[in-house]
Amino acid sequence: METVSSLLGSISDVGRDGVRGGYSRPVFSTPELDLRNWFQEQAGRRGLDVETDRNGILWAWWDVDGRHDDDSRRGALVTGSHLDSVPGGGAFDGPLGVASALAAVDILKERGIQPQRALAVAVFPEEEGSRFGVACLGSRLLTGAIDADTARNLKDPNGTTFAEAARANGLDPEHLGRDGAALARIGDFIELHVEQGRGLIDLDAPIGVGSSIIGHGRWKLTITGQGNHAGTTLMEDRADPMVAAAQVILAIRKTAAAAPDARATVGRVQPIPGGTNVIASRVEMWIDVRHPDDATTASLVEAVHGKAQKAAAFEGCTATLAQESLSGTVNFDTELQRQLSAAVPGAPALPTGAGHDAGILAGHVPSGMLYVRNPTGISHSPEEHVEDDDANLGATALADALERLL
Amino acid sequence: METVSSLLGSISDVGRDGVRGGYSRPVFSTPELDLRNWFQEQAGRRGLDVETDRNGILWAWWDVDGRHDDDSRRGALVTGSHLDSVPGGGAFDGPLGVASALAAVDILKERGIQPQRALAVAVFPEEEGSRFGVACLGSRLLTGAIDADTARNLKDPNGTTFAEAARANGLDPEHLGRDGAALARIGDFIELHVEQGRGLIDLDAPIGVGSSIIGHGRWKLTITGQGNHAGTTLMEDRADPMVAAAQVILAIRKTAAAAPDARATVGRVQPIPGGTNVIASRVEMWIDVRHPDDATTASLVEAVHGKAQKAAAFEGCTATLAQESLSGTVNFDTELQRQLSAAVPGAPALPTGAGHDAGILAGHVPSGMLYVRNPTGISHSPEEHVEDDDANLGATALADALERLL
Repeated sequence: METVSSLLGSISDVGRDGVRGGYSRPVFSTPELDLRNWFQEQAGRRGLDVETDRNGILWAWWDVDGRHDDDSRRGALVTGSHLDSVPGGGAFDGPLGVASALAAVDILKERGIQPQRALAVAVFPEEEGSRFGVACLGSRLLTGAIDADTARNLKDPNGTTFAEAARANGLDPEHLGRDGAALARIGDFIELHVEQGRGLIDLDAPIGVGSSIIGHGRWKLTITGQGNHAGTTLMEDRADPMVAAAQVILAIRKTAAAAPDARATVGRVQPIPGGTNVIASRVEMWIDVRHPDDATTASLVEAVHGKAQKAAAFEGCTATLAQESLSGTVNFDTELQRQLSAAVPGAPALPTGAGHDAGILAGHVPSGMLYVRNPTGISHSPEEHVEDDDANLGATALADALERLL
Repeated sequence: METVSSLLGSISDVGRDGVRGGYSRPVFSTPELDLRNWFQEQAGRRGLDVETDRNGILWAWWDVDGRHDDDSRRGALVTGSHLDSVPGGGAFDGPLGVASALAAVDILKERGIQPQRALAVAVFPEEEGSRFGVACLGSRLLTGAIDADTARNLKDPNGTTFAEAARANGLDPEHLGRDGAALARIGDFIELHVEQGRGLIDLDAPIGVGSSIIGHGRWKLTITGQGNHAGTTLMEDRADPMVAAAQVILAIRKTAAAAPDARATVGRVQPIPGGTNVIASRVEMWIDVRHPDDATTASLVEAVHGKAQKAAAFEGCTATLAQESLSGTVNFDTELQRQLSAAVPGAPALPTGAGHDAGILAGHVPSGMLYVRNPTGISHSPEEHVEDDDANLGATALADALERLL
């Protein structure tokens, strides 16, 4: 039986980012592939039967009565998370859920549990959307929440399409997309995840039960101006998209700060061509907006779009806004929440601003989440943390919940 | 005898940038090396003796009486420019001066000129500073304007040092730096260049004579905040360096617009880690500032620095400013200006906001410039342009000037 910290310790050198700190493990990169291999090896050690489905999701099966057929796996209890990371992310976002699932299998085996329904540990690709721009891409493909053609044509920053990356990793791009048979195998889905805010710190609780995921969208704003020489172009002759972009960044901050419970962020900005001595001809920027009320999200984005048009026009530029993804607020299955709360007595119910594969699956199968306390309250950063004791409590809580549901 | 447009036509496919448009020809990249080979081949066809000095500057010699020794080359008449480009730059910035120098050699040969002093066509590496961040790196190394150790340790965006890039291209990094013997070979230096502003358009003149280069510096501003999750971090809990950076970009625009003749630009911004769903932990941005009066440049930068400190502190971030380069305003050699004006009757005298190798050399040897009209007034962009007729007038003007000075 292996502890969560020992499991995470065995991958603590994979994908370290010497420049940003923390880890950079984009989907289908060498580090993420190393983690997939590590998962397959760990699952094999536990006698689980591992397969990769046509969307690149890994499934490690603990079958009933040695049956490996689709029939016996239908309506299974599934737990898991992801192994990819944001650039310079922490060690726990994703891998904690996968390692806890493996540790929970160990606990259940040690308890002598004989599952009455199949149990699977799943690993979803591109949860962060840090390479191809769409978060939860694996679960979106599985459920049909993203069109297969759209997914195939997503490009990473080097211009590689998702279809090309999928093919290079042994998937058939033609077979990407909604997978009804795979979806039918999920009877209930539980994802354990490091908390990414300060909820459990404030409540002084190590473990929480997910109640909802607030709505979340991503938009790409392109501001086009006139590229020119930084030394020879007088200030009054400029149509500098960087200046308009700065106005928009401040407008986003102001708009979000004025709307209770809203969060809006610009974390990625790309001036083109990007030379020090060149007035940019174009700035591309990405806007991440979240709010519990979907109508408020829409009106926030509309307000930002209006301000962007105005700022661009004032500078002699033009602005176009394109939605890249949008997920409404998700309330987790009430009955599954009740079961999780019963399995983890005293665990508070927690809404979250972070998206998860469980949120995508929730529209199709009963889904729920367990959160483990993060003493820094910081995530998507090397400062993200989980204490060993809390990690062990998390694995035990997950095992207890699985045992109730098996 | 070959025209300038035919010479430029022969390199019109080298280093095209399919993403940005125009050309991306950073120093020691495949396209820039292809252009160097093209230059050596063209010089060879004209019977010029080509050598690469220890700083990677190419020299193509038209020697006197077939003598190839340093003695006979001392105090030579030198013309030339550069072949590297900014990312997504135009076809003329650099190559026009090199092609015009080759065409001028053709014209002089056709006129039956027998030089009384050696003539060389020089090609300087990394004039744009687009790869290693320091503009006019070749001429700065030659003259000792940059310390060799500093130059060796400059890094490109991939982390490759200039020493490594130099070694990979056949230079000995230990031999980089001030080259008194090479400098002593330059008696006078003339650089022909596409105009990068609207001066000649407004004056309705195809050719101008450089009077001065206004002072120019580059600074790197690093704003450090707290990286965090874009969904779970409340607006009031943020220390987002992107918001502070936006304030600084607007402060730069406002400060420069209020100072007559000032130009200040932010064309390069890098949020780190740069994920859409991540509040940046750090933003690096580069500030390009120019003004004819060096004291005004200093006070502009001081004002921007103060505003950056204030904006960063307000957001709970810190800001540090580092000077990357600084060149004072350069007035070209009066006697050489007089000679150039005599050779090109009616050509107006023009100050410029663009830096050039001629500006670096001007502190050491008599240097001057000729500008060729750019009908768009736009440079560092695919829209940069020169009409064939103007290009031919430029080559003839250069030949006339060289003939007077030989």
